[in-house]
Amino acid sequence: MNCGKKNPMSKERFLKQIEFIKEIDKLKNVFRQTRILDNSREENDAEHGWHLAMMAFILEEHANELNLNMLKIIKMVLIHDIVEIDAGDTFLYASNRNDEEIFQNECKAAERIFGLLPEDQKEECIALWKEYEAKESKEAQFAAALDRLEPILQNCETGGHAWKKHKVKYSSVLERNRHTAEGSLIIWEYIQELAKKACDDGILEKD
Amino acid sequence: MNCGKKNPMSKERFLKQIEFIKEIDKLKNVFRQTRILDNSREENDAEHGWHLAMMAFILEEHANELNLNMLKIIKMVLIHDIVEIDAGDTFLYASNRNDEEIFQNECKAAERIFGLLPEDQKEECIALWKEYEAKESKEAQFAAALDRLEPILQNCETGGHAWKKHKVKYSSVLERNRHTAEGSLIIWEYIQELAKKACDDGILEKD
Repeated sequence: MNCGKKNPMSKERFLKQIEFIKEIDKLKNVFRQTRILDNSREENDAEHGWHLAMMAFILEEHANELNLNMLKIIKMVLIHDIVEIDAGDTFLYASNRNDEEIFQNECKAAERIFGLLPEDQKEECIALWKEYEAKESKEAQFAAALDRLEPILQNCETGGHAWKKHKVKYSSVLERNRHTAEGSLIIWEYIQELAKKACDDGILEKD
Repeated sequence: MNCGKKNPMSKERFLKQIEFIKEIDKLKNVFRQTRILDNSREENDAEHGWHLAMMAFILEEHANELNLNMLKIIKMVLIHDIVEIDAGDTFLYASNRNDEEIFQNECKAAERIFGLLPEDQKEECIALWKEYEAKESKEAQFAAALDRLEPILQNCETGGHAWKKHKVKYSSVLERNRHTAEGSLIIWEYIQELAKKACDDGILEKD
């Protein structure tokens, strides 16, 4: 039995954690550009986090590297979009996308939102989020590959909804998703197959 | 580098996994009785799974038992509602709730949906889901405590939306949530505090 829970510090700590848990509910109202597979509406970031975590669990064996830290990958995909509560979602293919400015806004958001947690957990979450953003560790590379696969599947199943809306071309899809190869060659091959088929089916514009 | 990925079996296996990943997108259209915290709409099961996984990660230290298998807990909460794609969501306090019939329907759903996966992963998912349902392991008891805490928070923040809609009374809240004590005494104490305050605030009917 865990006996550390009866002291007043623990209750104060618990209530801070509850405040964070309530705050992140807002992620359910941050909508992405891609639609859920029945094409009825845009997906939100909370659903997206759940789906990526399921993908991590199911597709683990297709990572380039074996023996990844799966718990870390799942935590990473669960938290990777929380900063968008303040910073908003920016479409991957947006022509006016300024990656440095986005990152600065997201850093401020991370400070505020993860700052609701006790200090040790704030540090853990920010470290996980920065590791994900840096895409240098094997875990981050696999997580990022999953994050790229999901919207490709969504576009393929919804007649290229977000691609058409934003006039995304085949060459951009390849260019923007090439880094999936660092996390999973099989996912990168599959994305290329899907993109070619999408061109053949007329839902992605060949350039 | 993982070299097992180039054989044709691996591709066939991958495509089965992708079919499963596409199928479970339907969870984003299974709506619960409780609302998200801004009271704008009901929560869906995918968002719920994400929120519970975040809660598991953040509240881990408040489980009664230390050294739980956190990866197992997170997988459990991610998949625990997938059966509702076929079986639907049944409100915890529904007066005509038939737990045995619900479980039989959910077993059929588990066979069909997890049956899309390769056999070993089907077995793993069904075992995880059954372990969760049985509420006997320490991991399942903690996961179940989180699953009870979230709707209480949601009711408290939305003026008791689902409680009022279904005429739920204070005694039912206590009775139906008492088992959270098996997973986390601090969560069970907190639920009791919230329920008492909800009565004082007039959003939960005292009986």
